[in-house]
Amino acid sequence: MIKVGIVGATGYAGAELVRLLLGHKEAEIVWYGSKSYVDQKFADVYRNFFQLVEDPCLEDQLEEMAKQVDVIFTATPQGYLASVLTEDILSKCKVIDLSADYRIKDVATYEKWYNLEHKSPQFIEEAVYGLCEVNREDIKKARLIANPGCFTTCSILTAYPLVKDGLIDPNTLIIDAKSGTSGAGRGAKQQNLFCEVNESMKAYGVTTHRHTPEIEEQLGYACGKEILVNFTPHLAPMNRGILATEYASLCQVTLPDGSVGYPTEEMIRASYKKYYDQEFFVRVLDGDTPPETKWVEGSNFVDINFKVDERTHRVVMMGALDNLVKGAAGQALQNMNLLFGLDEKEGLAMAPMFP
Amino acid sequence: MIKVGIVGATGYAGAELVRLLLGHKEAEIVWYGSKSYVDQKFADVYRNFFQLVEDPCLEDQLEEMAKQVDVIFTATPQGYLASVLTEDILSKCKVIDLSADYRIKDVATYEKWYNLEHKSPQFIEEAVYGLCEVNREDIKKARLIANPGCFTTCSILTAYPLVKDGLIDPNTLIIDAKSGTSGAGRGAKQQNLFCEVNESMKAYGVTTHRHTPEIEEQLGYACGKEILVNFTPHLAPMNRGILATEYASLCQVTLPDGSVGYPTEEMIRASYKKYYDQEFFVRVLDGDTPPETKWVEGSNFVDINFKVDERTHRVVMMGALDNLVKGAAGQALQNMNLLFGLDEKEGLAMAPMFP
Amino acid sequence: MIKVGIVGATGYAGAELVRLLLGHKEAEIVWYGSKSYVDQKFADVYRNFFQLVEDPCLEDQLEEMAKQVDVIFTATPQGYLASVLTEDILSKCKVIDLSADYRIKDVATYEKWYNLEHKSPQFIEEAVYGLCEVNREDIKKARLIANPGCFTTCSILTAYPLVKDGLIDPNTLIIDAKSGTSGAGRGAKQQNLFCEVNESMKAYGVTTHRHTPEIEEQLGYACGKEILVNFTPHLAPMNRGILATEYASLCQVTLPDGSVGYPTEEMIRASYKKYYDQEFFVRVLDGDTPPETKWVEGSNFVDINFKVDERTHRVVMMGALDNLVKGAAGQALQNMNLLFGLDEKEGLAMAPMFP
Amino acid sequence: MIKVGIVGATGYAGAELVRLLLGHKEAEIVWYGSKSYVDQKFADVYRNFFQLVEDPCLEDQLEEMAKQVDVIFTATPQGYLASVLTEDILSKCKVIDLSADYRIKDVATYEKWYNLEHKSPQFIEEAVYGLCEVNREDIKKARLIANPGCFTTCSILTAYPLVKDGLIDPNTLIIDAKSGTSGAGRGAKQQNLFCEVNESMKAYGVTTHRHTPEIEEQLGYACGKEILVNFTPHLAPMNRGILATEYASLCQVTLPDGSVGYPTEEMIRASYKKYYDQEFFVRVLDGDTPPETKWVEGSNFVDINFKVDERTHRVVMMGALDNLVKGAAGQALQNMNLLFGLDEKEGLAMAPMFP
Repeated sequence: MIKVGIVGATGYAGAELVRLLLGHKEAEIVWYGSKSYVDQKFADVYRNFFQLVEDPCLEDQLEEMAKQVDVIFTATPQGYLASVLTEDILSKCKVIDLSADYRIKDVATYEKWYNLEHKSPQFIEEAVYGLCEVNREDIKKARLIANPGCFTTCSILTAYPLVKDGLIDPNTLIIDAKSGTSGAGRGAKQQNLFCEVNESMKAYGVTTHRHTPEIEEQLGYACGKEILVNFTPHLAPMNRGILATEYASLCQVTLPDGSVGYPTEEMIRASYKKYYDQEFFVRVLDGDTPPETKWVEGSNFVDINFKVDERTHRVVMMGALDNLVKGAAGQALQNMNLLFGLDEKEGLAMAPMFP
Repeated sequence: MIKVGIVGATGYAGAELVRLLLGHKEAEIVWYGSKSYVDQKFADVYRNFFQLVEDPCLEDQLEEMAKQVDVIFTATPQGYLASVLTEDILSKCKVIDLSADYRIKDVATYEKWYNLEHKSPQFIEEAVYGLCEVNREDIKKARLIANPGCFTTCSILTAYPLVKDGLIDPNTLIIDAKSGTSGAGRGAKQQNLFCEVNESMKAYGVTTHRHTPEIEEQLGYACGKEILVNFTPHLAPMNRGILATEYASLCQVTLPDGSVGYPTEEMIRASYKKYYDQEFFVRVLDGDTPPETKWVEGSNFVDINFKVDERTHRVVMMGALDNLVKGAAGQALQNMNLLFGLDEKEGLAMAPMFP
Repeated sequence: MIKVGIVGATGYAGAELVRLLLGHKEAEIVWYGSKSYVDQKFADVYRNFFQLVEDPCLEDQLEEMAKQVDVIFTATPQGYLASVLTEDILSKCKVIDLSADYRIKDVATYEKWYNLEHKSPQFIEEAVYGLCEVNREDIKKARLIANPGCFTTCSILTAYPLVKDGLIDPNTLIIDAKSGTSGAGRGAKQQNLFCEVNESMKAYGVTTHRHTPEIEEQLGYACGKEILVNFTPHLAPMNRGILATEYASLCQVTLPDGSVGYPTEEMIRASYKKYYDQEFFVRVLDGDTPPETKWVEGSNFVDINFKVDERTHRVVMMGALDNLVKGAAGQALQNMNLLFGLDEKEGLAMAPMFP
Repeated sequence: MIKVGIVGATGYAGAELVRLLLGHKEAEIVWYGSKSYVDQKFADVYRNFFQLVEDPCLEDQLEEMAKQVDVIFTATPQGYLASVLTEDILSKCKVIDLSADYRIKDVATYEKWYNLEHKSPQFIEEAVYGLCEVNREDIKKARLIANPGCFTTCSILTAYPLVKDGLIDPNTLIIDAKSGTSGAGRGAKQQNLFCEVNESMKAYGVTTHRHTPEIEEQLGYACGKEILVNFTPHLAPMNRGILATEYASLCQVTLPDGSVGYPTEEMIRASYKKYYDQEFFVRVLDGDTPPETKWVEGSNFVDINFKVDERTHRVVMMGALDNLVKGAAGQALQNMNLLFGLDEKEGLAMAPMFP
């Protein structure tokens, strides 16, 4: 059995890791780390685990944890892992970081968007961006995984094939994303009270959200150049789910008949199929069916589809995932499976819950 | 592998059976029965199963199904199974009925509350009421299981120990239950539209709801006499979950010190422990913690707790479950596990999903 | 114009008072009192009032306010008004208290249930319990109004006629109430976060909720004796609304034909009509129609109906109101109208909003 | 008193007209038209109006209605009014059409997007597009008002100043809109059931939604040329509200210092102020505050704000309104006020309801 430690197990993403790991046949949690609930029973903090988890919360103590476990998940605020990670820890166990600390290769970019000094830039280079469908082989060999953000996973996977294949102009990319409220965490903030969120929609972090440079970097790798995109997150009155609606101008390309023109729906579908046909967790929907967040709830799936607008020569791409699963804990577990040579689907193959 | 046929697979309870059975190691669905969607892909009706289920919907044809499967689940309207069930079918496979057709032993009571003529009363006697925690041994030997209703499972399990042990007067029992909207089914009715249900609470079927005689019969067995209760269901603006709040007057009993008086909190807790301590799916919560539907969502658990009111000499009992799981498909699967000698928890041990 | 000061204008009930007063033809708010937002623009705290209210929040300074206004509304935590109210204030202006400080005539009862020392018991006697439909004439002559709680208003009005007319045994009364989350206030508490409340139902304060003695006292006046009831509030995933489902045993009475028996549906309906037929804000629904919280949203109406259970000789009474309007700010305004001799409906006659 | 007839009073928009008209001092409804509920009490169809409206539903009979009323509102499916409108009707009373029949000046465009033959194109020319803030003077003189759609009102008003002043390239405009479910109407459709909508987000009508040509036509008038935009509506799990997030590339213009460059935030804000400073119902928010649908709920306000992205030289514009008020019934009433020379705000000045 793989021994697992979780730093920040009492946040929503940490608790979702617990839920998924309880169903994993080859892993067991030996350390439920927490900052605010040390010595309390974990199941008193998340009562869904009553009689399923008897352990208490322990301190978020990375060095000690590293001696006892095979892999550490850190579901912590930005800057935390960077401030405590050491070569010694990495030499003893794998680390899968659900925060943004090692996602962005350029330290200056990180420090600017996060308004934080990076305390251990020496590990950035070796960290592998844990977007499994894109970086699978690198992940298998890594010690340190920078697990992608929820908006980022959805936004990138939805546009990736078309960017990679040069079918859209990445600098025209506009990402309008809608998120369930669990993405805002369990901290007691007035703006996340039921009565403030329910029956309302709003944008936030307009032009300044921290997931923007992460999307730009990864899609930039796909097309081999630096790009700038617009990314706007919205808060939606639901617990889980991210829906990304993405707009981009089609590029003129050589068509099957040799002429030059805008890619057809068939060409675009072929591009998606090329990258995702073998991917269990990415489902390219049929026909005009738009993805819905409810159809992936509780699961590690990303549902994707698109529509070509022949009037404006743009394509509208849509992707949906569960922000706590494929957008956080599920993808982290998928990374763990890759790191330890397990079936990538172990503990993650459950069907979405509907309704 | 146990071969499974589902009649009414395209209702919410049927689709939940599919979700659970996909995670069951020893069963496979070979017949997705439907009335309205014959020949359509099942995954086009419930898109959460896209790429997970490739089968089409077949007709709800019980006789033919019985030749091909080991067990049939019927998730159908009241009266349907009673009108088609035959000895021949029962001789070929087990039948687990999620409708009410064989739940009530007295035909006249059934026909009065359901306003239906019962077409096959000859099977009522042999049908076993599939409340696993109460009738486990009988279930193991049965051919025909009458799977309890969602309100009923919650209402009965919440009060059962105290009724059984004579700690409360069952004729004072008042059950005020709140249900998520999936209990109303997937039929297109104005009253179940989002805008009609959202931001609203109402009672329905006051004094006339069909689950009333089912509760009275089963709790009557527990105390050995006929009883009358008040049961009031309410529609709540949530997808899943039933919360039953139950009130009853305490009976004067012999106390540990030999005097006569009202049972203490310790005595009541001891009664719950006596019946449920060994039950995996019934969780008697600690202290004053009230059950919440969210803590059992997606799981087969029932969470129960109670509070003694020393001023009024009543006890307030509370129970919470997921109406589609322990209240329908999950309990049906638990019954299947019992019928086939499997681990009762197989396919049902997942933790609840929160948030 | 009546000059109005609001102490605690930045809580949900205070802000609802602002909404209603903006539509009142004969009153104007001259003091927006607040504890946490002094000197901030009120419309920055509640952005629905952007460009409608230009005033800043001022301190909650009762003595100074009393010099400038004709009436003070206090929408403050329990104990606050009792600690600052003086004869001098009451001699200068009317005070309508939305807290519980002067609702309960017996100081010991107040101090026990609220776990607070009452700092100005000398005003309790003169305070009039502001349930307009019951105490209208006393209200008109009062200086100090104890505005009833949200659960209380709903619970009392729903049972009042039957208790008053001796048709039910008040000591058998069981009140199962469901409340929208705005009743929990705007304070940043984890338990009231969107993700914790959404898709869930739970009871709270079981057997100990502070509205219990208030209900017992007022219904006790109606029947002329001390009574004990069970009251259980529940948190529902909606912003506004209270639904009270109440159960009581019918009393045997002299029937129209001179025999003794349980009151008929007609007799019960006649009792409701007797007290409410002339009441604009109390609507006794027709036939079997159960009240729904959505049908009174945003309005000062209470919708009531009932159902007789001839099997158990109980009656199930149901009442629905908007907790922030008839359950708080609306009733407070209704009291103001009475105090100043205005049309009782002024500023309150708007239709409920649906959907 | 202005006598009002409503055709389609039993749809959500029709019922909202009733709610608003009940609070209007100079109008009274004399004809509650309906197709499905003729002879039923209107208050039995919308129980929020219990004891407030005693009238029955009458047939949707335009000719007879025209003899009895001063103004007819038609809240009917597309094509209905076009099939029954006559010169005789228009000679007798004003007509305010909440459907799309006379919104689009080019019949071919209408017939293509709506897939309907237009039965009375002779009235299209005279119909005035009832976007009050843009066409106020023409509205005052009209007989026939084409009341704008909900998405359209929000989308146009949010971008109008910048399009009109040439600050953005209208052909780069991308409108990502989120709508509450009441926009889908009260018809009993599976896809609008509570359990299907709750906890989910999805796009619909991608590239083909009928509001697209209406937006293009109106914004085309603003900039004096034909334009093409992308418009994508989304269904959100809330009753009311539309949030439009709009993206466009900034145009290079002459700056205050005489140089050529992208417009600054100040210039953009000045453009909004120029058109909306005197508009009561359009509120341009301060600073970076993003509009939220909850802050306009129940009211006729549109809240607007924007953010400049200096990295991509785009502007993100945001607008929020209540789809049933400013997006339907409220704007229709505003049009009525203009048509009859009343205060434009009469019956519409109420503050939004929060929470």
